[in-house]
Amino acid sequence: LPAADAPLEGRARRDERYPVHVTADREQTLAHVQAQLGDATHAAVVADETAHDLYGAEVVRALRGAGADVEVHVVPAGEATKDLEQAVALWHGLAAGPIGRRDLVVALGGGVVCDLGGWVASAYMRGIPYVNLPTTLLAQVDGALGGKVAVNHRLAKNLLGAFHQPKAVIADVSYLASLERRHLSAGIAECVKKAVIASPDYWAFIDARARDLVDRRDPAALHALVRAAAAIKTALIERDPYEIDLRRPLNFGHTIGHPLETVTGYGPLLHGEAVAFGMVAETRIAAARGLCEPALLDALIDLLQRLSLPATAADLRRAPRGADLVAAMEKVRLIRAGSLRFVLPVALGETLIADDVTDGEVTRALQACGLDGW
Amino acid sequence: LPAADAPLEGRARRDERYPVHVTADREQTLAHVQAQLGDATHAAVVADETAHDLYGAEVVRALRGAGADVEVHVVPAGEATKDLEQAVALWHGLAAGPIGRRDLVVALGGGVVCDLGGWVASAYMRGIPYVNLPTTLLAQVDGALGGKVAVNHRLAKNLLGAFHQPKAVIADVSYLASLERRHLSAGIAECVKKAVIASPDYWAFIDARARDLVDRRDPAALHALVRAAAAIKTALIERDPYEIDLRRPLNFGHTIGHPLETVTGYGPLLHGEAVAFGMVAETRIAAARGLCEPALLDALIDLLQRLSLPATAADLRRAPRGADLVAAMEKVRLIRAGSLRFVLPVALGETLIADDVTDGEVTRALQACGLDGW
Repeated sequence: LPAADAPLEGRARRDERYPVHVTADREQTLAHVQAQLGDATHAAVVADETAHDLYGAEVVRALRGAGADVEVHVVPAGEATKDLEQAVALWHGLAAGPIGRRDLVVALGGGVVCDLGGWVASAYMRGIPYVNLPTTLLAQVDGALGGKVAVNHRLAKNLLGAFHQPKAVIADVSYLASLERRHLSAGIAECVKKAVIASPDYWAFIDARARDLVDRRDPAALHALVRAAAAIKTALIERDPYEIDLRRPLNFGHTIGHPLETVTGYGPLLHGEAVAFGMVAETRIAAARGLCEPALLDALIDLLQRLSLPATAADLRRAPRGADLVAAMEKVRLIRAGSLRFVLPVALGETLIADDVTDGEVTRALQACGLDGW
Repeated sequence: LPAADAPLEGRARRDERYPVHVTADREQTLAHVQAQLGDATHAAVVADETAHDLYGAEVVRALRGAGADVEVHVVPAGEATKDLEQAVALWHGLAAGPIGRRDLVVALGGGVVCDLGGWVASAYMRGIPYVNLPTTLLAQVDGALGGKVAVNHRLAKNLLGAFHQPKAVIADVSYLASLERRHLSAGIAECVKKAVIASPDYWAFIDARARDLVDRRDPAALHALVRAAAAIKTALIERDPYEIDLRRPLNFGHTIGHPLETVTGYGPLLHGEAVAFGMVAETRIAAARGLCEPALLDALIDLLQRLSLPATAADLRRAPRGADLVAAMEKVRLIRAGSLRFVLPVALGETLIADDVTDGEVTRALQACGLDGW
């Protein structure tokens, strides 16, 4: 028996790496999906209705062609699907079938499906492998990467979730040909965010190629857009995969953007649209503090508007009352250990973190964005 | 922008250590709880009714005395509480209050509360800190340690969960003074398991001190029992914290014990009782194969019976039909990648893993244990 005074300690360690494949070739994409099966004998495809209608059959065929038994779980498209009730329904659905610990979940769809399917996979049998097959630009440049999986709660965005790394991410830009224009723009909002926080070169690329990206959907431009976004995000995450220090510049635009989604009820605004508006409001705070040149704010608004993204309250499909948005931010303040943390841009590629932004500064910024109802 | 052919890769790493305090001194226990608050300004105590009635007030008083706002969530005692609906209710309950990412969940109760509270904490805001304050012997020697948190599903034990390490485990053997005799025995079942798989010395200790442990509840003997169990379990886990290779000798008794709990509906049998019966049945398989001496089986049955633990079907409070138990094992076979993996004892402290146990061997072992209904 151990000595009574010997110190006791538990320990756990995890180290995971996963490939991110960016392709424009459907055959290559399906071959990547098949390769991810490994020893799995069963696969569960979790797909939103839109992605399922367009691409479900070919993914199922590929998995079956590689020898897997396949079950398909279709969920409605849209942010409202990312909730606890859908997760519970999927858990019951998986439990009723043969999926085991070595099997594979394939998330096919937008960020909602990657987040929901990833969380469901993270908890099922304490975590089974999953692959992200993002079909929207937003998911390809952001949601499918990084292993942050979650569902929303009526009171706060992404309140319930986990860190569960995908086995692989396969981002096929050929899926983007069918994407609604509005969703394409929403995806680029997260690219603009990455450019502001990390890369003047990436900003210059988006700025120069805006029409090629949004109007012409040039495959080579979209491929470069997605690859660079993935490279920037994975590099930023590697420093702090579990957000231990809560200081991610990736949260730029989200301190206001997330509560904006919550207060508008998850749906009327796309995530990228809420982030676009959030970036403008947060940059107004930075400019008012003299942290950045007013020219940066002007350039941001100009680029977002050329991308058909909301930069003012009038651009929002549903603008909340200002007072309601501030109330929703209070919940986030609690979550974030009592302070609302802002990522404030200083220049392209440079940000700082501020814990001391006052309610007055937030209100003035939102009013300058045209928000009423105070 | 990155070169188009440069490989992209995501990565995540986590390394966690936590202290395990074994005490027999309530003041020390409460001081440990206070120390775990750290920067937390709020604490949520998740307690079962029994633990809450006996010890809830002093824990809340200690946390408040250290300056924390405290909310209390009481759940019914018993294995049936470890389910998805309770987890969902706790998530809604936490969301309604002020608990944030830097705050603390305190699980006060048996293994059910440690598993349920730990899973709830693991998903809330993608994981907030929690401390286990186990009040039953089973939780002190097993459930509170190792970061395996989960709830049950009608179709399989622990089907939904996570690996989420506690911030600390504080095991106070003075809590055991109030424990029902039956629960005390059930806890020792997991100690016997650890002795069989890892430590002839621990076996000799339990064998020699059985009456001191169960009848006299000798504090020094209980302290040594809990410390040794924690030392054995943390050492075994350290080799494979996430059960990547699925080869844990800690699963001895569970290949049959878990389905036995599932098929009897989570409640009539205590977890330790199901494991005791499972160990006997699994050792019968080993003995029938000639892997271990029949004397090991006889010694195991003798020790379990001296500890008032079930070694035969007649000892079970609810014995299932043999055919129903085998059907429940089929679900586990699927979960475990198509094979039922057995931990078979070779000698005290030595086991081997068998993936090739046939249905016939299982049936003969269960029949030898006296199970009817085939």
